[in-house]
Amino acid sequence: MMNSTMIIAVIGGEEASDEVDRLAEEVGRELAKRGCTVVCGGGDGVMEAVCRGARAEGGHTIGILPGHNADESPPNQYVEFPIFSGLGYARNSMVALSGQAVIAIDGAYGTLSEIAYALIHDRPLIGLDTWHFAYPGHDAERLVRADSPQDAVEKAIAAAQRRGVP
Amino acid sequence: MMNSTMIIAVIGGEEASDEVDRLAEEVGRELAKRGCTVVCGGGDGVMEAVCRGARAEGGHTIGILPGHNADESPPNQYVEFPIFSGLGYARNSMVALSGQAVIAIDGAYGTLSEIAYALIHDRPLIGLDTWHFAYPGHDAERLVRADSPQDAVEKAIAAAQRRGVP
Amino acid sequence: MMNSTMIIAVIGGEEASDEVDRLAEEVGRELAKRGCTVVCGGGDGVMEAVCRGARAEGGHTIGILPGHNADESPPNQYVEFPIFSGLGYARNSMVALSGQAVIAIDGAYGTLSEIAYALIHDRPLIGLDTWHFAYPGHDAERLVRADSPQDAVEKAIAAAQRRGVP
Amino acid sequence: MMNSTMIIAVIGGEEASDEVDRLAEEVGRELAKRGCTVVCGGGDGVMEAVCRGARAEGGHTIGILPGHNADESPPNQYVEFPIFSGLGYARNSMVALSGQAVIAIDGAYGTLSEIAYALIHDRPLIGLDTWHFAYPGHDAERLVRADSPQDAVEKAIAAAQRRGVP
Repeated sequence: MMNSTMIIAVIGGEEASDEVDRLAEEVGRELAKRGCTVVCGGGDGVMEAVCRGARAEGGHTIGILPGHNADESPPNQYVEFPIFSGLGYARNSMVALSGQAVIAIDGAYGTLSEIAYALIHDRPLIGLDTWHFAYPGHDAERLVRADSPQDAVEKAIAAAQRRGVP
Repeated sequence: MMNSTMIIAVIGGEEASDEVDRLAEEVGRELAKRGCTVVCGGGDGVMEAVCRGARAEGGHTIGILPGHNADESPPNQYVEFPIFSGLGYARNSMVALSGQAVIAIDGAYGTLSEIAYALIHDRPLIGLDTWHFAYPGHDAERLVRADSPQDAVEKAIAAAQRRGVP
Repeated sequence: MMNSTMIIAVIGGEEASDEVDRLAEEVGRELAKRGCTVVCGGGDGVMEAVCRGARAEGGHTIGILPGHNADESPPNQYVEFPIFSGLGYARNSMVALSGQAVIAIDGAYGTLSEIAYALIHDRPLIGLDTWHFAYPGHDAERLVRADSPQDAVEKAIAAAQRRGVP
Repeated sequence: MMNSTMIIAVIGGEEASDEVDRLAEEVGRELAKRGCTVVCGGGDGVMEAVCRGARAEGGHTIGILPGHNADESPPNQYVEFPIFSGLGYARNSMVALSGQAVIAIDGAYGTLSEIAYALIHDRPLIGLDTWHFAYPGHDAERLVRADSPQDAVEKAIAAAQRRGVP
């Protein structure tokens, strides 16, 4: 790919506390400041906050929605490029696949599925205040914990650069 | 649905220790003895063992494979009805959706994604020696732990009966 | 695959005239008499008629539904094994992929997409009173026309046997 | 949606004659000149030509690829935002769904499936030298024929404006 743009997936739930909203918006801002495009599920909560932050800094935002159209799946107002998958939550694998790295923030069961897909498909995975999971024989440390939005973005970009294009 | 057959999804990894293989085969046997059909991912490991057990007791087995055909995704030899999805691991959501209850045995990251889908789509979920996961605000006890194959099957059938058809 | 069962996909629309219903039911009967399992989209119209015919002769029927559950996508009452894809009409590719041959009967735009998928994925394709389509450089004769349900079933089985497992 | 950008899907085959390549590039140029973003399958042939034309005029291009990563599905070099679906050709429905209108140029069986999806999901559909198809009871004129790239783009934009956001 000749494209210079790095695309980072941000995953998280449709509901966000004020604190989680602030973290996600800051992740969006930091990604855009560094020239990254955000891909996410295009909905509310963490998805809206990260898009809001990215757009505030002039970044591009792509939302891969579950429904067939904007009536069924309204994109949040900060999604620049809505993709209507019509696949329901089966679209979660695509969100993880479309990032050169994946940042998980908070999240519900959908986020847990996207974490699993990032691990299945070997995408670098950074967690900011998100799920814990464990099973013998599987290295839970493949999810690298970050302690701030800046730290999450720096770790995601560094991991994506080490890995190259997806 | 007029169909009297109960369909139970069994999820687990492509590799299985002897002990896990034994558990999965026994789950298959118990499901078939009670007249249930098994749906799974159709591959090796836990999937093969559960199909082997079910077929040994005369049960039906459906395998939803990731690939487009048997060359790309060979079904294990105990899959009676192979469904070729061509969707890769995005087919995981369908495995969970197609069971009136879901039994998770052991498992890797694919299993973690299927656990998440069972929770997203509100399927009763029984765990037999499988992933632990936790996040504040989400009730990890929605995965009900079983302590034997018999216990897992009894809990799955009871939950499916309480819930009705999916 | 050790499985002796041949699986044939039957595609067609959710609405069927009396004449089309009769053709589809007869295709289902003929498939079951010859020991074949039917896979289809699980809905009404042609899908219901082919399942009705197959079940009347003791055959197995698998329906790959668009929705997440029976409330959203009620399987017709002759579907023995409902698979809930949750993928909407994106599930059409799976219906074509899961047959060792594909029989198209009548049909609307969904059927046209399934015809295209049978051609994309190189499944033998038999048409019984269905779409015509043409474009220079593409051999429309890859859809083999049949003139009766018996003829359609014989051509489908012969083509599947020549080709082997999918 | 507050987004002012109109997204138009362009569908066509992985191989293109010189003449088809010229038509597709011109469609891309005309879309970009009018401020539209192109969504396509991200591959070679018509997809590459339409992206090349759009990028030459400063337009945005989104490619929804069949594979899991750039090794498996290299995006053409004019795709600005690659989305890796991992769904194989089942991704075709998403390409049609993600356009406020769909322009079909030339094309093989994949294009025929995308034409069917545009009709299933009621997207305005413009054809430039593409498939013919017919079946009693289905109005083939829902595919509006254009006689030049300019005509195709004008008809697509006008239809999308009449219809509103997807």
